[in-house]
Amino acid sequence: MANKRVGKRTVRLQNNPTIISAASVVGPKEGQGPLKDYFNLVLQDDLYGEKSWELAESKMVQTAMQMAVKKADKKLEDVNYLLGGDLINQILPASFAARELGVPFFGIYGACSTMAEGMCLSAMLIDGGFADLILSGTSSHYCTAERQFRFPLELGNQKPMTAQWTVTGAGSVLIAPNEKGPKVRYVTVGKVIDKGIDDGNNMGAAMAPAAIDTIYSYFNDTKDDPNSFDIIATGDLGLLGKQITEDLLKEKGIDISNVYTDCGIEIFDLEEQDVHCGGSGCGCSATVFAGYIYQKLLNKEFNKVMLVSTGALLSPTSTLQKQTIPCVAHAVVIEND
Amino acid sequence: MANKRVGKRTVRLQNNPTIISAASVVGPKEGQGPLKDYFNLVLQDDLYGEKSWELAESKMVQTAMQMAVKKADKKLEDVNYLLGGDLINQILPASFAARELGVPFFGIYGACSTMAEGMCLSAMLIDGGFADLILSGTSSHYCTAERQFRFPLELGNQKPMTAQWTVTGAGSVLIAPNEKGPKVRYVTVGKVIDKGIDDGNNMGAAMAPAAIDTIYSYFNDTKDDPNSFDIIATGDLGLLGKQITEDLLKEKGIDISNVYTDCGIEIFDLEEQDVHCGGSGCGCSATVFAGYIYQKLLNKEFNKVMLVSTGALLSPTSTLQKQTIPCVAHAVVIEND
Repeated sequence: MANKRVGKRTVRLQNNPTIISAASVVGPKEGQGPLKDYFNLVLQDDLYGEKSWELAESKMVQTAMQMAVKKADKKLEDVNYLLGGDLINQILPASFAARELGVPFFGIYGACSTMAEGMCLSAMLIDGGFADLILSGTSSHYCTAERQFRFPLELGNQKPMTAQWTVTGAGSVLIAPNEKGPKVRYVTVGKVIDKGIDDGNNMGAAMAPAAIDTIYSYFNDTKDDPNSFDIIATGDLGLLGKQITEDLLKEKGIDISNVYTDCGIEIFDLEEQDVHCGGSGCGCSATVFAGYIYQKLLNKEFNKVMLVSTGALLSPTSTLQKQTIPCVAHAVVIEND
Repeated sequence: MANKRVGKRTVRLQNNPTIISAASVVGPKEGQGPLKDYFNLVLQDDLYGEKSWELAESKMVQTAMQMAVKKADKKLEDVNYLLGGDLINQILPASFAARELGVPFFGIYGACSTMAEGMCLSAMLIDGGFADLILSGTSSHYCTAERQFRFPLELGNQKPMTAQWTVTGAGSVLIAPNEKGPKVRYVTVGKVIDKGIDDGNNMGAAMAPAAIDTIYSYFNDTKDDPNSFDIIATGDLGLLGKQITEDLLKEKGIDISNVYTDCGIEIFDLEEQDVHCGGSGCGCSATVFAGYIYQKLLNKEFNKVMLVSTGALLSPTSTLQKQTIPCVAHAVVIEND
């Protein structure tokens, strides 16, 4: 068996890939939420000086990446690879950002699981001796996502209470071999799971089984103890999906309830901010990780963390063709020395 | 410097990642082209028994992956990762195939560079000891691409002579550490290059600068000799893009003219099949590699090959917003022992 594999699905990294910096940019609404003090930049205008929301989203992820490089006192020329992607057709924001940044580019697509997908791949590429510095990041924007996946904003459509609110935000991490900072210890890559839900306004319930499968696989492979974590954070399951995940994992003998939260619940004040079941979008787990969780790791308030970004791999075309929603979740385990 | 890097942009693999099998599925038109005898399955019906072209494309890539696993006498349960993506919004065909195959999934997006992008990542993940078996593949379909990127087929629009014809086809490779078969020796990952072309019917010219940048980087990093290759194949530059690439590389001191071809030119009979500048789409380099080139490697007619899949990272949204076309090209160098 390949020497870094543990159990059926998990990889143990052996050369201390280190998250040497992280940066986050969020929109005005996110900048009024409970995590507002953790973000590096809060935009006053969600067009960010651009002519379209798509170009604004691209500029957000570009800014988050530039900030991560600057915070680590590195140069863009020294970055070997950039991994990025987002929800927008043909990952326009990430591709355009990669053009501006001039770093060799792996485009990835994992819907809202993209942050963890990029971190899994980046950690392995660093661990394997293929790169000295990798930037990984992602973004989402309420206005680009709404008009692509649902309705023109101008319609002012209402949403059912199971729906979530796409985060306007971008987050990025910079990973290097064996430096000072939090280390990526394990990654567990998700299978695509589809339990037959076809309601794009109930993504939490659609994605929960993928999160359950990945979290269960990690604990089954490593025999690790959930209570050894300071926090286990799923990406954007929201209120409903979080409850399903917690309950069904408990039925399978894994009790994460003491340490479990969901980035979609953390980023907004669910009662005050009218976001129904919580935040969603690639930018949700990206900004909560790059902002809040990373800062807590640096402060040693958290010393062991699991990020499980969750993605719904539907498209407007698959919805029109009456298909159900395939989902995926990737787990990254990060520890301080 | 990370121990597997060579020069500025290239990685030398050290543990003999081996392409142990490859498989290809093509549509009826491709099955009448000059490479028809190299493909494993030629469909008689481009709906492949499905209700939509998108579902047909998904079934094609699923079939190509299943065939690659079967040809190597392996089982799907033994495959650690599946890397896939395609041109379709939210990579619907790859995601749906991953759901059916049940293998942990990294979704990727590199437009028509996806085949080489997946092979670069897969070779590194195998080389680094993270997996024992990785499936990588991609697809395109004339009918899904036309209606998404251009016009409804029912309109019967004409195209300018610079345009290319999207290949209906899927190709897949299975990669394992140090087995019998052709080895991936080097990978050079592309930067996103945009020289200002905004005409989606002139993709060859848009993508050529990205191919030039990547091919030049490989030779600059390794000091390898172009004439040591049996074939250097770009993905889908077509007639026009191929000529640009050959000419501009020669100006930069790299003469690949003796060994250079383009998959988009090989797959169709340009005069008989009315495809203007040639084939395009993720499936173009995927099927030409998994069909023709891989077979020639097995036969030892080719012993050293460079595949440079080329991708145009535009979207219908970026086109409507009058943006230019960012492009990318990734190179994979494969050798027999």
